[in-house]
Amino acid sequence: MRKTRGCWGFIRALHKAPEAAPAPQKDAVRRVFSGIQPTGTPHLGNYLGAIESWVSLQNEPGSVLYSIVDLHSITVPQDPAVLRQSILDMTAALLACGINPEKSILFQQSQVAEHTQLSWILTCMVRLPRLQHLHQWKAKSAKQKHDGTVGLLTYPVLQAADVLLYKSTHVPVGEDQVQHMELVQDLARGFNKKYGEFFPVPKSILTSMKKVKSLRDPSAKMSKSDPDRLATVRITDSPEEIVQKFRKAVTDFTSEVTYDPAHREGVSNLVAIHSAVTGLPVEEVVRQSAGLDTAHYKLLVADAVIEKFAPIKSEIEKLKMDKDHLEKVLQMGSARAKELAYPVCQELKKLVGFL
Amino acid sequence: MRKTRGCWGFIRALHKAPEAAPAPQKDAVRRVFSGIQPTGTPHLGNYLGAIESWVSLQNEPGSVLYSIVDLHSITVPQDPAVLRQSILDMTAALLACGINPEKSILFQQSQVAEHTQLSWILTCMVRLPRLQHLHQWKAKSAKQKHDGTVGLLTYPVLQAADVLLYKSTHVPVGEDQVQHMELVQDLARGFNKKYGEFFPVPKSILTSMKKVKSLRDPSAKMSKSDPDRLATVRITDSPEEIVQKFRKAVTDFTSEVTYDPAHREGVSNLVAIHSAVTGLPVEEVVRQSAGLDTAHYKLLVADAVIEKFAPIKSEIEKLKMDKDHLEKVLQMGSARAKELAYPVCQELKKLVGFL
Repeated sequence: MRKTRGCWGFIRALHKAPEAAPAPQKDAVRRVFSGIQPTGTPHLGNYLGAIESWVSLQNEPGSVLYSIVDLHSITVPQDPAVLRQSILDMTAALLACGINPEKSILFQQSQVAEHTQLSWILTCMVRLPRLQHLHQWKAKSAKQKHDGTVGLLTYPVLQAADVLLYKSTHVPVGEDQVQHMELVQDLARGFNKKYGEFFPVPKSILTSMKKVKSLRDPSAKMSKSDPDRLATVRITDSPEEIVQKFRKAVTDFTSEVTYDPAHREGVSNLVAIHSAVTGLPVEEVVRQSAGLDTAHYKLLVADAVIEKFAPIKSEIEKLKMDKDHLEKVLQMGSARAKELAYPVCQELKKLVGFL
Repeated sequence: MRKTRGCWGFIRALHKAPEAAPAPQKDAVRRVFSGIQPTGTPHLGNYLGAIESWVSLQNEPGSVLYSIVDLHSITVPQDPAVLRQSILDMTAALLACGINPEKSILFQQSQVAEHTQLSWILTCMVRLPRLQHLHQWKAKSAKQKHDGTVGLLTYPVLQAADVLLYKSTHVPVGEDQVQHMELVQDLARGFNKKYGEFFPVPKSILTSMKKVKSLRDPSAKMSKSDPDRLATVRITDSPEEIVQKFRKAVTDFTSEVTYDPAHREGVSNLVAIHSAVTGLPVEEVVRQSAGLDTAHYKLLVADAVIEKFAPIKSEIEKLKMDKDHLEKVLQMGSARAKELAYPVCQELKKLVGFL
């Protein structure tokens, strides 16, 4: 999750449109929840894997909530001024990408106090080994020589609270979040068993798991934290940077353009990106590129990405100049989220015995 | 803490008046915070060790906050209906004992959402081994075969949030809370170091640590969870029950009344209780009891306890009949606590970078 630029509960469908998500349960109001961490500008992988799907989900029946999960971001050290700016930058990026505050509830997690309240209740329902056995904790705490903060251990419980607080029915997730979704589901079931049916057990929206790969190592995911700056294309990169990054993209010694992810990871990644940003099927982009060598093809893909991102980039720049507007969008979204969260939290308090 | 009926951050002074607490720092507004879990009727040990001191602290300069810490109580399983009733019962008991909502802020922890918000921030500042090495976690998780909930592990962080949220300067604590107070102090210092001076580093009010002992095993503390119901005298016990419990109190084979806690634990416990409930010095109650054998002395102490508790018991019964009043007291107290907590939490969010 954090490795994929702090975006969680999201779809990483590269080739599969989000309308392929399971149909809502009969008689249930469909409510989608997803969160993204405010840490840096989204990159191509975030855009194609998650944000584009979020935009589509807005048009489906039911309600959608997208949260800038700033509480999650402090599980690793943050500079406060950078964090504040990143929250506004992420808001600008999401709006520029097409998240529409009229169609979805875009809000800032820390502005809805009920998240941590439910999180505490759930924290009192989970055993320590359950959290210690989650892959991500094991990987992260090992990396930090078992010195990770307790927040890094318990944030999957906060994630569960994020989802359950809105009685969400569906959560778009990446494959690295499957274990965390199981925890969400188990906590929902455990709560219902102890206190009576209350939470819907949310379903994952698991779409095709193809991911955008690093341009420098097509066996790895594209990641904002990649030490090789050429590996990752950001939405706000200049056309020159995008051209440079694609020009240096690692491919193999065959110059032909084919789509064969098992044997030709590098060029297949380019084809997949090309298909995704143009909206054309993979077969069609391969057909159109017949006769081109990979060197020329790279420039073609770069152009397609530049064309896709140009209006987004310009919109981000415009939005960033109006800090007041961004703050207002977050305030209004957070107020709407709170309107949903407050009565749920009051019910919860009655069920638990506080009220 | 929980063993001593879920009361925490409290004075267990039996013979030492709370005015012996350290004088407030110069130029600092003294603010005392303490919490008590809503689990069962207070017993003699709670009354003499904590509640009586809370009442005295109300009359000292500065402000005092007393919280019914219901969020802490769910770190172990609770029946919701019992918990709800216990919150009201504890409110009644505290009011009957002399906690005055005009002089102190008596409130319910779960009604002030900022507690869990600050707790999350602090959770992201503490390492797992620090919590795992706390005596209470080690004892409790061992008892539960390392199967305690994560809430049981992390509640000392919530305690720290309880104290720091009000920028408290003083916390009355028992000796079993010394480690937890060190955590509170370290978290205050750690926050100040990272984000700039913000929290006062709260001081413990550590008074004489003499405790009321079990009437059945004077080597152990009086505890609400004692399996021997004769061991523990509750504020609401009937006179007949109190007489029976003291009559059965374990003493030694010497019938004389002396105060010698090292060699005569049982009778010394009775003398200590007698002294505490009458307000007379130990020497004076021993002098007055010259010539009495322990059998008669037990009845004398029982009478003194009955006399002390009679008006409290009758007030509790009266208060319990007016549920609306108890709820209103908690609501008003919680609103006042929130008035203090909200601006602190807003400042915190700015410092951390959320706002």
